[in-house]
Amino acid sequence: MELDKINHPNDIKKFSVKELEDLAQQIREFLIQKLSVTGGHLAPNLGVVELTIVLHYLFESPKDKFIFDVGHQSYVHKILTGRKDEFDTLRQYKGLCGYIKRSESEHDVWEAGHSSTSLSAAMGMALARDLKDESNHVIALIGDGAMTGGMALEALNHIGHEKKKMIVVLNDNEMSIAPNVGAIHNHLSKIRSDKHYLKAKEEAQQILKKIPKVGGTLAKTIERLKDSMKYLMVSGILFEELGFNYIGPIDGHNIELLMEAFKQADKVDGPTLIHVVTVKGKGYSPAEIDSHKWHGVGPYKLEPDLNEKEKKGKSTPSYSNVFSSALIDLAKSDDRIVGITAAMPSGTALNKFADHFPGRMIDVGIAEQHATTMCAGLADIGMKPFFAVYSTFLQRAYDQLVHDVCRQKLNVVFAIDRAGLVGDDGETHQGVYDLAYMRHIPNIVIMVPKDENELQHMVKTAVDYNDGPIAFRYPRGAGIGVKMDDEKKSLPIGSWEVVKEGDHVAVLAVGPMVRLAEEAAKELEKENIYLEVINARFVKPLDHDMLKNLAENDKALIILEEGSMQGGLGSAILEFYSREEIFNVKVKQLGYPDYFVEHGSVKYQREEIGLTVDNIVKQVKGMYNLKNGVLNLKN
Amino acid sequence: MELDKINHPNDIKKFSVKELEDLAQQIREFLIQKLSVTGGHLAPNLGVVELTIVLHYLFESPKDKFIFDVGHQSYVHKILTGRKDEFDTLRQYKGLCGYIKRSESEHDVWEAGHSSTSLSAAMGMALARDLKDESNHVIALIGDGAMTGGMALEALNHIGHEKKKMIVVLNDNEMSIAPNVGAIHNHLSKIRSDKHYLKAKEEAQQILKKIPKVGGTLAKTIERLKDSMKYLMVSGILFEELGFNYIGPIDGHNIELLMEAFKQADKVDGPTLIHVVTVKGKGYSPAEIDSHKWHGVGPYKLEPDLNEKEKKGKSTPSYSNVFSSALIDLAKSDDRIVGITAAMPSGTALNKFADHFPGRMIDVGIAEQHATTMCAGLADIGMKPFFAVYSTFLQRAYDQLVHDVCRQKLNVVFAIDRAGLVGDDGETHQGVYDLAYMRHIPNIVIMVPKDENELQHMVKTAVDYNDGPIAFRYPRGAGIGVKMDDEKKSLPIGSWEVVKEGDHVAVLAVGPMVRLAEEAAKELEKENIYLEVINARFVKPLDHDMLKNLAENDKALIILEEGSMQGGLGSAILEFYSREEIFNVKVKQLGYPDYFVEHGSVKYQREEIGLTVDNIVKQVKGMYNLKNGVLNLKN
Repeated sequence: MELDKINHPNDIKKFSVKELEDLAQQIREFLIQKLSVTGGHLAPNLGVVELTIVLHYLFESPKDKFIFDVGHQSYVHKILTGRKDEFDTLRQYKGLCGYIKRSESEHDVWEAGHSSTSLSAAMGMALARDLKDESNHVIALIGDGAMTGGMALEALNHIGHEKKKMIVVLNDNEMSIAPNVGAIHNHLSKIRSDKHYLKAKEEAQQILKKIPKVGGTLAKTIERLKDSMKYLMVSGILFEELGFNYIGPIDGHNIELLMEAFKQADKVDGPTLIHVVTVKGKGYSPAEIDSHKWHGVGPYKLEPDLNEKEKKGKSTPSYSNVFSSALIDLAKSDDRIVGITAAMPSGTALNKFADHFPGRMIDVGIAEQHATTMCAGLADIGMKPFFAVYSTFLQRAYDQLVHDVCRQKLNVVFAIDRAGLVGDDGETHQGVYDLAYMRHIPNIVIMVPKDENELQHMVKTAVDYNDGPIAFRYPRGAGIGVKMDDEKKSLPIGSWEVVKEGDHVAVLAVGPMVRLAEEAAKELEKENIYLEVINARFVKPLDHDMLKNLAENDKALIILEEGSMQGGLGSAILEFYSREEIFNVKVKQLGYPDYFVEHGSVKYQREEIGLTVDNIVKQVKGMYNLKNGVLNLKN
Repeated sequence: MELDKINHPNDIKKFSVKELEDLAQQIREFLIQKLSVTGGHLAPNLGVVELTIVLHYLFESPKDKFIFDVGHQSYVHKILTGRKDEFDTLRQYKGLCGYIKRSESEHDVWEAGHSSTSLSAAMGMALARDLKDESNHVIALIGDGAMTGGMALEALNHIGHEKKKMIVVLNDNEMSIAPNVGAIHNHLSKIRSDKHYLKAKEEAQQILKKIPKVGGTLAKTIERLKDSMKYLMVSGILFEELGFNYIGPIDGHNIELLMEAFKQADKVDGPTLIHVVTVKGKGYSPAEIDSHKWHGVGPYKLEPDLNEKEKKGKSTPSYSNVFSSALIDLAKSDDRIVGITAAMPSGTALNKFADHFPGRMIDVGIAEQHATTMCAGLADIGMKPFFAVYSTFLQRAYDQLVHDVCRQKLNVVFAIDRAGLVGDDGETHQGVYDLAYMRHIPNIVIMVPKDENELQHMVKTAVDYNDGPIAFRYPRGAGIGVKMDDEKKSLPIGSWEVVKEGDHVAVLAVGPMVRLAEEAAKELEKENIYLEVINARFVKPLDHDMLKNLAENDKALIILEEGSMQGGLGSAILEFYSREEIFNVKVKQLGYPDYFVEHGSVKYQREEIGLTVDNIVKQVKGMYNLKNGVLNLKN
């Protein structure tokens, strides 16, 4: 079998086209098989099998630089660069990373963070190459969804201007994570259709057999084209106008056509854009039919309807669903409420909101900056926009958050999903900086629910609060299964909750950490240590009265947050005591450390950084045992 | 005189075109006169006199929404909406704001922060209008420079898709703050020329008389057009492809043509883009000739060569110039060094670097995200990129800083200009969050020089440091006039400097605050209080030894930073003591508070927030007088 012979990119250099095609088939089977055990990004990788093979066949990695815009599309690349035997550990703690990882291989040259970065990185590498007078190729792969991200457009513009030699592969699969929206998408659709129109109808039909999705709209497109010969000019014109050579569209599953395109690109000077049409999930029919569902999956049986993740979802509702249900409920009697997402309608569960209020949910595509400022515009005119966004993606809109929302003190609500540790997705998806990057911005209120029941109250609180921006952040995945109150109620702004009274040490816990603290308290009771547990559900403003009270009662404090200790809640509490000139409080922080925590299950990640019941117990005992402190009561 | 009659937009509704033209002339004279005393953004406002008049003539503010992309272009709008009598206080403390200010007038509906936000805000307002079933107009004004900003492109894409009725005025003056770069600019130039080509040559000539800049390239353009009929199709095609109705280009100083264009836009459904060509500085020849110099100016004599700011610049070099000179010097013997700017070549003084090393300075236009990640790409291939960027603008690239630079631990240098309070420009330009939004990111080193001499050493330090990203931040304007060392030397990473020994209280000061602390120390000596002054020149990593030492010697600390107290250096120091379980140190923070400090001179801003010698003196005395502390020695 061809696949067995591959341990280095050089191993495919002498393959015939037929052998490369067989290899593609074997890689597909390998991925479907392996990922059924480990889970992972199946559909995106099935879409780029041929593309990746052709890259490694024609070019010389690592001398030539391949830059994947989304690192989760690199499985085939990993297989071809000597890592196929490690796929059993994919996305596991200390195992094969699900993304590009420079420390894993010399062939991994760029660790993509969020989407839309590849063009900028490639531009940098092309510049560096020319400054150093070297001669390698620089090839960036970007999806059509990522192309709407502002920074990709910034880069496109700049690359067109500078005219450095490089290749951009536009991987157009008519899907980003969700079907992507926007005019650029329409533009691409037109290009695709026009090209078919230009060729003979038969040829178009033939391509269409390979690319089923395009078929449906062809008749309509031809109808439209009749009215305007202009469209004949359009093919690739956007890119050409911006200074690129344009080649395409190419069937991205046809190895010969792909090779031809890259060879053609190699001949011309300046930047070339190769427009490739691929099918996400290609070769695995459940994934082809529903590539959205199969974008990133947990382990699965090889029959698709037994998806474990789906099943699991049914027992305890996810935080995302609780948020969405609460919002739907409240929106019935409040016309101001609008839901906004940036290409994550199902991830944030806002698709359900859209089912109820079709006109009141807007998906702007991968465009967090625009989304945030658009929310400010909505709020400026009296609406109540809820921007549901992953913690890590909101990083993209930090400036808009500062200036457009908070400075103008507009009633925008941020429903921050996937906050805290996210597990397998690793460093680029950890939602651990939100508290630190929001807390120093004036005018914003920041809440964190201890469980899904409190989340619904926070949605209500956000609706009722009309004195500026307000945010609540909640974790990925299922809630903890608590009873849901029938009625949603508003929480007093800045009020914390004493979950359990105690004696000398109090834990101030954020979000799901409250539950951890409660468990630690139970353990400690066995040794007659009575830990106080406080639900610090407002990170801004703090509960000043409670903090003063704790100081007056001489409590030592442990701050527990699934977020950066640098600049987080603990930091806020320390600042508060300093400001109040209360200098005698012992405060200990537990949280995300000052390095990037790698992929692995949340369980392992928490253990690595000490967010465990055991460690809380240990730290509390330590507090009772201070060298220079008051609190060595038990010794 | 027409101008005297204007106190409300309605006052111009009955004017004839001739009267409107006279009014335009009077407004120009008014601005040239007033700004010669107060300073301000002269050239941009002279460019939009007619445009703003026509908006207020045809539409009904505030029912109809005018959204200025850059708030400093709103002077004419302010004159027409009843604020002309306040121009004597322009940009002064508690005076008329130089930007749009919602609290100033009901006609100010959107406070622009950074560039490129207007389209997103307008989209939000158009959505809100339709959801509320109202019928007002929404009109966004955006410059051609701002159009290359990623978020504007995100918005353009989304607006084209949603097809809400709104008007986007593209104010194409061939200049953003610096001549802007990029392919979109080229595209606009083509459009402009093509239109002229389409009309009769005579007509083109006539327009050209009014728009002198276009003239020079016309011959060349016509030559080019001969080769390709494609260009005939191009006019507006980018926008049309994205779903806009396109009108233009229009001479933006011709009131009748402008009126016609807006009326035409009003007739069609969906979004319309009106492409307007204006001359920055129009009507004041020194500003027309050098609109860059006259973009934002200090007070000036009505003869241009006596610009006060220019003169002042000659005595003490600005921090920007010191940075640039040091970089030029070091780049001579280090080929890795590359300078990057995002549309601020002269503001950052990197234009001088470009004079020495033309191929090694890259201006990417208004595109901070792209710039940051491009730097990561450069560093990935062994280059040493210096991204010189204003503190406030780097906010746009927070996510790229986290993921693309720091997570990959790449040797990118951030030369952060305009850090701290910036004075007249006000809230949106304060460089006060950089320490807070960078400090929690792993792997980055952050430096702040106490004066321009230390700045040159930090440039050297950054060149010598090759273990990941490193940043230094320095203030706007002139240095403090210290003697410059002949030789640049590297500072040990994480080392602070004891500037003056003292007894019980130490001030840990950042950047220019060191000088303030020294002055306070002098004052205090008169009362036999010996204040210790420490130059905390590394905000990350901290000088751990010195901090421990201070604690061991029982010093009380005052942290002094021209940056947000929330999450800043003080916060880092508090975290350090907490982590080390050193619970007995008294720490007091002075810095930027938890609200947005408005425009006014830096002097007033510092007084407002307590960053003055007097307040330091007072705080130190307070430290000696603590209720529950050890330190009441002097009582």
